[in-house]
Amino acid sequence: MSHMEILKASGFGEAELGGGTLSVATPVDGSEIAKLSEHSVAEANAMIDKAHDAFLKWRTVPAPRRGEYVRLLGEELRREKDNLGALVTLECGKILQEGLGEVQEMIDICDFAVGLSRQLYGLTIASERPGHSMRETWHPMGVCGVITAFNFPVAPWCWNAALALVCGDPVIWKPSEKTPLTALAVQKICERVSAQFGDDAPDGLTQVLVGERELGEAMTAHKKVAIISATGSVPMGRAVAADMSKRLGKTILELGGNNAMIVAPSADLEMALRAIVFSAVGTAGQRCTTLRRLIVHEDVYDALVPRLIKAYEGLPIGDPLADGTLVGPLIDDQALRAMDAALEKAKSEGGTVHGGGQALSDSHGAAAYANPAIVEMPSQSEIMHHETFAPILYVVKYKTLEQAIEMQNEVPQGLSSCIFSTDVRETELFLSAAGSDCGIANVNIGPSGAEIGGAFGGEKDTGGGRESGSDAWKAYMRRQTNTVNYSRELPLAQGIKFDF
Amino acid sequence: MSHMEILKASGFGEAELGGGTLSVATPVDGSEIAKLSEHSVAEANAMIDKAHDAFLKWRTVPAPRRGEYVRLLGEELRREKDNLGALVTLECGKILQEGLGEVQEMIDICDFAVGLSRQLYGLTIASERPGHSMRETWHPMGVCGVITAFNFPVAPWCWNAALALVCGDPVIWKPSEKTPLTALAVQKICERVSAQFGDDAPDGLTQVLVGERELGEAMTAHKKVAIISATGSVPMGRAVAADMSKRLGKTILELGGNNAMIVAPSADLEMALRAIVFSAVGTAGQRCTTLRRLIVHEDVYDALVPRLIKAYEGLPIGDPLADGTLVGPLIDDQALRAMDAALEKAKSEGGTVHGGGQALSDSHGAAAYANPAIVEMPSQSEIMHHETFAPILYVVKYKTLEQAIEMQNEVPQGLSSCIFSTDVRETELFLSAAGSDCGIANVNIGPSGAEIGGAFGGEKDTGGGRESGSDAWKAYMRRQTNTVNYSRELPLAQGIKFDF
Amino acid sequence: MSHMEILKASGFGEAELGGGTLSVATPVDGSEIAKLSEHSVAEANAMIDKAHDAFLKWRTVPAPRRGEYVRLLGEELRREKDNLGALVTLECGKILQEGLGEVQEMIDICDFAVGLSRQLYGLTIASERPGHSMRETWHPMGVCGVITAFNFPVAPWCWNAALALVCGDPVIWKPSEKTPLTALAVQKICERVSAQFGDDAPDGLTQVLVGERELGEAMTAHKKVAIISATGSVPMGRAVAADMSKRLGKTILELGGNNAMIVAPSADLEMALRAIVFSAVGTAGQRCTTLRRLIVHEDVYDALVPRLIKAYEGLPIGDPLADGTLVGPLIDDQALRAMDAALEKAKSEGGTVHGGGQALSDSHGAAAYANPAIVEMPSQSEIMHHETFAPILYVVKYKTLEQAIEMQNEVPQGLSSCIFSTDVRETELFLSAAGSDCGIANVNIGPSGAEIGGAFGGEKDTGGGRESGSDAWKAYMRRQTNTVNYSRELPLAQGIKFDF
Amino acid sequence: MSHMEILKASGFGEAELGGGTLSVATPVDGSEIAKLSEHSVAEANAMIDKAHDAFLKWRTVPAPRRGEYVRLLGEELRREKDNLGALVTLECGKILQEGLGEVQEMIDICDFAVGLSRQLYGLTIASERPGHSMRETWHPMGVCGVITAFNFPVAPWCWNAALALVCGDPVIWKPSEKTPLTALAVQKICERVSAQFGDDAPDGLTQVLVGERELGEAMTAHKKVAIISATGSVPMGRAVAADMSKRLGKTILELGGNNAMIVAPSADLEMALRAIVFSAVGTAGQRCTTLRRLIVHEDVYDALVPRLIKAYEGLPIGDPLADGTLVGPLIDDQALRAMDAALEKAKSEGGTVHGGGQALSDSHGAAAYANPAIVEMPSQSEIMHHETFAPILYVVKYKTLEQAIEMQNEVPQGLSSCIFSTDVRETELFLSAAGSDCGIANVNIGPSGAEIGGAFGGEKDTGGGRESGSDAWKAYMRRQTNTVNYSRELPLAQGIKFDF
Repeated sequence: MSHMEILKASGFGEAELGGGTLSVATPVDGSEIAKLSEHSVAEANAMIDKAHDAFLKWRTVPAPRRGEYVRLLGEELRREKDNLGALVTLECGKILQEGLGEVQEMIDICDFAVGLSRQLYGLTIASERPGHSMRETWHPMGVCGVITAFNFPVAPWCWNAALALVCGDPVIWKPSEKTPLTALAVQKICERVSAQFGDDAPDGLTQVLVGERELGEAMTAHKKVAIISATGSVPMGRAVAADMSKRLGKTILELGGNNAMIVAPSADLEMALRAIVFSAVGTAGQRCTTLRRLIVHEDVYDALVPRLIKAYEGLPIGDPLADGTLVGPLIDDQALRAMDAALEKAKSEGGTVHGGGQALSDSHGAAAYANPAIVEMPSQSEIMHHETFAPILYVVKYKTLEQAIEMQNEVPQGLSSCIFSTDVRETELFLSAAGSDCGIANVNIGPSGAEIGGAFGGEKDTGGGRESGSDAWKAYMRRQTNTVNYSRELPLAQGIKFDF
Repeated sequence: MSHMEILKASGFGEAELGGGTLSVATPVDGSEIAKLSEHSVAEANAMIDKAHDAFLKWRTVPAPRRGEYVRLLGEELRREKDNLGALVTLECGKILQEGLGEVQEMIDICDFAVGLSRQLYGLTIASERPGHSMRETWHPMGVCGVITAFNFPVAPWCWNAALALVCGDPVIWKPSEKTPLTALAVQKICERVSAQFGDDAPDGLTQVLVGERELGEAMTAHKKVAIISATGSVPMGRAVAADMSKRLGKTILELGGNNAMIVAPSADLEMALRAIVFSAVGTAGQRCTTLRRLIVHEDVYDALVPRLIKAYEGLPIGDPLADGTLVGPLIDDQALRAMDAALEKAKSEGGTVHGGGQALSDSHGAAAYANPAIVEMPSQSEIMHHETFAPILYVVKYKTLEQAIEMQNEVPQGLSSCIFSTDVRETELFLSAAGSDCGIANVNIGPSGAEIGGAFGGEKDTGGGRESGSDAWKAYMRRQTNTVNYSRELPLAQGIKFDF
Repeated sequence: MSHMEILKASGFGEAELGGGTLSVATPVDGSEIAKLSEHSVAEANAMIDKAHDAFLKWRTVPAPRRGEYVRLLGEELRREKDNLGALVTLECGKILQEGLGEVQEMIDICDFAVGLSRQLYGLTIASERPGHSMRETWHPMGVCGVITAFNFPVAPWCWNAALALVCGDPVIWKPSEKTPLTALAVQKICERVSAQFGDDAPDGLTQVLVGERELGEAMTAHKKVAIISATGSVPMGRAVAADMSKRLGKTILELGGNNAMIVAPSADLEMALRAIVFSAVGTAGQRCTTLRRLIVHEDVYDALVPRLIKAYEGLPIGDPLADGTLVGPLIDDQALRAMDAALEKAKSEGGTVHGGGQALSDSHGAAAYANPAIVEMPSQSEIMHHETFAPILYVVKYKTLEQAIEMQNEVPQGLSSCIFSTDVRETELFLSAAGSDCGIANVNIGPSGAEIGGAFGGEKDTGGGRESGSDAWKAYMRRQTNTVNYSRELPLAQGIKFDF
Repeated sequence: MSHMEILKASGFGEAELGGGTLSVATPVDGSEIAKLSEHSVAEANAMIDKAHDAFLKWRTVPAPRRGEYVRLLGEELRREKDNLGALVTLECGKILQEGLGEVQEMIDICDFAVGLSRQLYGLTIASERPGHSMRETWHPMGVCGVITAFNFPVAPWCWNAALALVCGDPVIWKPSEKTPLTALAVQKICERVSAQFGDDAPDGLTQVLVGERELGEAMTAHKKVAIISATGSVPMGRAVAADMSKRLGKTILELGGNNAMIVAPSADLEMALRAIVFSAVGTAGQRCTTLRRLIVHEDVYDALVPRLIKAYEGLPIGDPLADGTLVGPLIDDQALRAMDAALEKAKSEGGTVHGGGQALSDSHGAAAYANPAIVEMPSQSEIMHHETFAPILYVVKYKTLEQAIEMQNEVPQGLSSCIFSTDVRETELFLSAAGSDCGIANVNIGPSGAEIGGAFGGEKDTGGGRESGSDAWKAYMRRQTNTVNYSRELPLAQGIKFDF
């Protein structure tokens, strides 16, 4: 399909794609594919007010009925999987397999949220007073603002939206200014769902803000946005947290990762090799869960690293829409320059660089294709403490597992981590209180590719938020503790006497 | 017992109580009871480092063993209940019944935490991939800083500490500079417990910072303080949140309340009357859960309010250590002046004030005893949106329950709330998504006096934190999602194919 | 639609419907609609073996993938709702609204089970030993035999099957010999789903046994049937329990109900009236949750009961497929005779009968249409302790709520119960430890019509089983407690020393 | 201490110990230590009635207050640990370390139950109908009968009683007729606790039935015994289940085990060796979790088994009260004869027996001391499918893990199991749906010595019951699902319309 065909398949008309101020380019070849109208801050505020009106209605729609909305959304996404997957690839440059995988994640979380809509379990609790009953209930919280990044243009919205909608919260979405089209395509889907769903779906249940950073700031500033769920860089997250702290608003932060894999002597090296390559070069190294640091036991270093370097050399780089491509472009030229700079710094810190540099420079014009790089480092140097959003994999050696874990935990980020080892004493130690300090810790799989059934997110500079499965839904609701006295007495807790 | 006898019973020697720079007065008569040495910021930082060292050891002590520490703490508190209760009364001025009740709450949460120490349940989760198992585990988080306020000088520390200790986190306590003695008395108890417990209890497991605000700031500034749990005013909470947002640290905020009771036509007015008086004048109106706003249906207003005014007139005000006293002193003269100012403002907004003003001015010297005040307001005016930490109860009328709930929810705080009604249609509406927006909502009991089995805390400006029962313990731990691949294959989630 | 058209719409060919030994009549007019082949016990045993083979495969299919099977089943049921709903009505005689409602319940539980397929949560648990981790996981149990009754011919199967399939257990269904056609129609749907699902769905995942009681006995006798979930009469349940006790197999028993409503003085009598009529005459009184006993406060008796008698007189009785019918036929003539006998007994015990007797005797030939009956009783006599599967509602008076609750609890069955009262002190007492002893207790709704989100089932002679929502799924799995020692030490629990 | 001193330390007077019909011998030397009065069936029935009266009162005592009772019980057990531990050893013959460990388990479960008393969590659940709230609450169930076996004379009672008491259920205890003294000693402790606790503790809260099997049958026959929790042999469990099936009563069955360990090639053989010896000869092989079957990989067989045989030869057998003894006596001569018979059968099935036969025959008179036996078997023969309550360990070889798991699962019992392996692929497979079919499955620890935090119990012939931690407490309560309609409408579930 041509780029225009992909856009049309997602329902975009030509008028919609032109005439605005926000230029959207495809990283596939760097060409502009849309010039979109942007929302003003005033418009954003009006949309938030509308969302809040929607909230007042939506919160009293029974949760299982809200679940039906999300079920219909899941069905519509199933129907649109191919179209939306291709659009994801077109707009953010990840290979089609990953574009489709991202839509599949949207579908999965919808299925999960439907079941959740008949749960949203609070607790009934034993009371210490006769004739009293205690319980705790979770209620809808308010408007949920969702800020997403270019690298996962649609799935994180859906992790948030599927839960938020079931939890009774309307959603306003501020996508990356680099990937607004996928957001608009999803909004079209939501509008079809609302039409199908009927009157219970209030106007403004889901909305998209097209534009730059100030629209995000409009959300953090507005009292009626009860929750901000933000995915992106650590500085962005700090800014959101600071803004929200002024009004004591709730945040769900999914910020940077600097994810490591430990390869132990007992590891199955074949599996490790495959996992490393997918984790490190998938999405051209632009996943928050991308593998960035490889900590290899000295005894298996020579058996693994040369083969890895070799594997890198043969990776098919190119048009992410094309069959067989495994490495697509970076999002833009700035990303490529940042990668170059990081590799330079790594060299200056004693690293030996394999690969790196621009790829396919002739054939793809303005697009920023990069050769994935492996950098052998003498030790965990300064540059390794930073997340560079590019396919750079640093490799260091270790002697003892305790030392490897210490290296793994040394960086400020705390998103994902893994160990390749077949020794249960090592794998369980890695998962223990004295092991990885990340929100995600895996054994014999890479750091990326979480299932939606678990809670997703990380600690430290990663921001502490959790999305997706387990009880992540609680972040979208307010908890209320209730005590009901059904007796004719008025006993006080803790046995206090107060008689007048 | 004399004041000095109370101090001695809690183990204070004379040397300890003098020679320092921090003057501690008892609100009972305004006299100085101690001049304590204060910690410098440098000392605070050293104590934090020590706590972090303790953390590295404590986190690997098995949780049920950590629970044994808390069990011993509970036993010690049982033994010390009378002494510590009296000291609470001496230092913060609440009546002895309430001082003892506060210690009982400490004991209760210890018992609860002991049971918890064999739970700390994460989940095992069904994985979508063959040969994979998923689970989520909760691990110790790090040093927990606890900031408490004068009005509950010991219980909130224990809500936090009992859970934090069981969860594997050492605790550093910054009590109010008005109530450091109770904190030091509790620290003495902890030291006895540590001695009993033996080597597993590392040095620095619990520590107390004596001094002013800059010690709290030392904690928010220090990377090794993973969690700050702060009880106090909204501005304090905002400051903590802003500081912690800079380093993306975790907070548990328990800030101001502006708690209302709705009295419906069907209410049992006898019970309502008793509940109002205890909730409004208990702790001399200085509980965060104190009843501050009474929203009475117009049909029962005349049957209730005059009786209430009458009841206020007969309340025994006086020495909180004395039998029969129900209303003790305010914490200090500043509190009395703030009360006066609020009453003035209320008058200017159309209110009719009953009571108020200084009580017992002759007999108690420098102490700030106040006559509790009832203020009949024509509507919910500006002053009613503020929390004045004093025994002022504003009363307004309502016509429909929807209107009453709207008034209840109109203020910026969201801690506690209640309804007196015998009509289940009203009481359940009040507890529903369209009802009270507070963290606590009760039926036929007042807003104060929560049991430790439920989660305690509130929404909006109250800060969103939860302490005590239910799953409040999760705030003291980090969650880790694990996927273990025990197969010899490497399937990717979401069915992605990536073969090279 | 004609009866034959209804059968054809569900996919039955003529060959299939004839030639067998099991005569199936429609209660609509008593005519025979099929003569089905019956399975022998040998065939049943072979089918169980096949199901067990299916189990060995199905248990290793990841649960979310099993959930996809159930999702497809839900989709297929959505498509077939009208057809299957009509067939339910044709075969068991409930009105079309209720036939459709029953299919909706199937759909609802499928949606719920899909979400569950990414949960099936066990726990991770704090261990008392250093270097040890504890967890509990739920594993597939084995073949699940499902025995259903004529009155809910399809929904209870689906409550069981949706959960069992997600939990990893193949299902063998023994429907009532009075309603095998709906079972076969559902099996056809399952076969379409299996075809769509592909190779992961083993042969024998769902199977139907057509025939009489000995087929149920084949299941209880067979070691490879790990669980029997049986819905039906108390004697049937006792027989199943006795058989299973011989081999210590698991049972889920949903047996008789003898459900009461208490109408308190404060009740909204309009609502009570509507609830009573639906609960008492819906499904012609043949629900296990049918309202059978009405316990009315003496102060409102005269305001309620005469109106109720009047309402009964105007109920449209007739063809359940026809618009406007509210009362369809009893299942067969035997049911009508049992109803007559119960009414006779009630009279002999002092009751005054309103209604009762055969209805529409001319126009409907062999069908057993009954006039619903209200029986005013002087007290709760012997007959009221029995469940007669027919539209008989016994009415008694009460003076105090305690007395009413005692009457409610006096019968051997313990399925469902409710109170109509607007007084929260009454309603909460009814729901308390000293209130209703039933598995279901409602306030201001009738005893029937449970949502699938809650656990369904009852206590005492009702058998103690739970199906549907909450953690009812656990009955279909086996729990395993795991302790993993990842240290190099071997400490014993409880601090035992054992050195050799 | 002399035997009489041990009895006196537990509070027995001489009068109490004589004059009855039930002879109690100590396995230490076979001498009679008491002749107790037995209860008649009529007395048992009266005690059950009394327990039921206690239930009607106890169920309305708030659960945290009931928890206080159990806390006091735990404190009293701490004080009595040495005395009760010695009595356990005297009466059942296990070594003192194990006697003390058993009392520690009682203490642990009390601590756990205290925390539980402020939980007993049910759920609040999202309702599909507007203006409705759903929840599920757990209520006290009724009298709990506890039947225990001689080998754990006190801990299993406490696992049951601590939970049952907190859950609101009085307890009647039928101990083994071989170990009534420990039961009576515990009852004395309970009576002290009741006295301390005050009026809230009704008469008959805990009671002990002294006598034979017919007293157990009195409990299974009596409608007012809501739950029977029985620990013992499979035939006993089947009898209880059959009796209870007649009245559809609840059972918690903890029956026989036939527990295996798989030793894989990667196992730490040092640790395995230690674990095997403790698991196989602890309590002289008379634990339900005793290791009975050792399944060793052929590659490590020769490195392990000869050392094991050697270790057995040096085990100190003798007076269980004496320091240094690791193997005490069997319970009686019949046990010794059963052991001999099993060894004979093993030989006839091709086994090579090491050890076995009577030990210490001279010095210990009537006591039944046995030499622990190891039997090398050519394959898993008939005798290995049976549980012989004696220190016999069968050893077989395996080639593949799948084969080892198949052997492990082949026996009818399903209590406990373990694997020694350091390969996470093996250990996780062993814990998976395709792994061990037991209720307990451990890695790198033996099958015995469960912590109280997990649910204890097994599948298949082991009876399916669960006691102790996790949500085992639910078996002592009844679940109630509540829907409260607080609207003025009466919508039906599943969207059914029913208007008359």
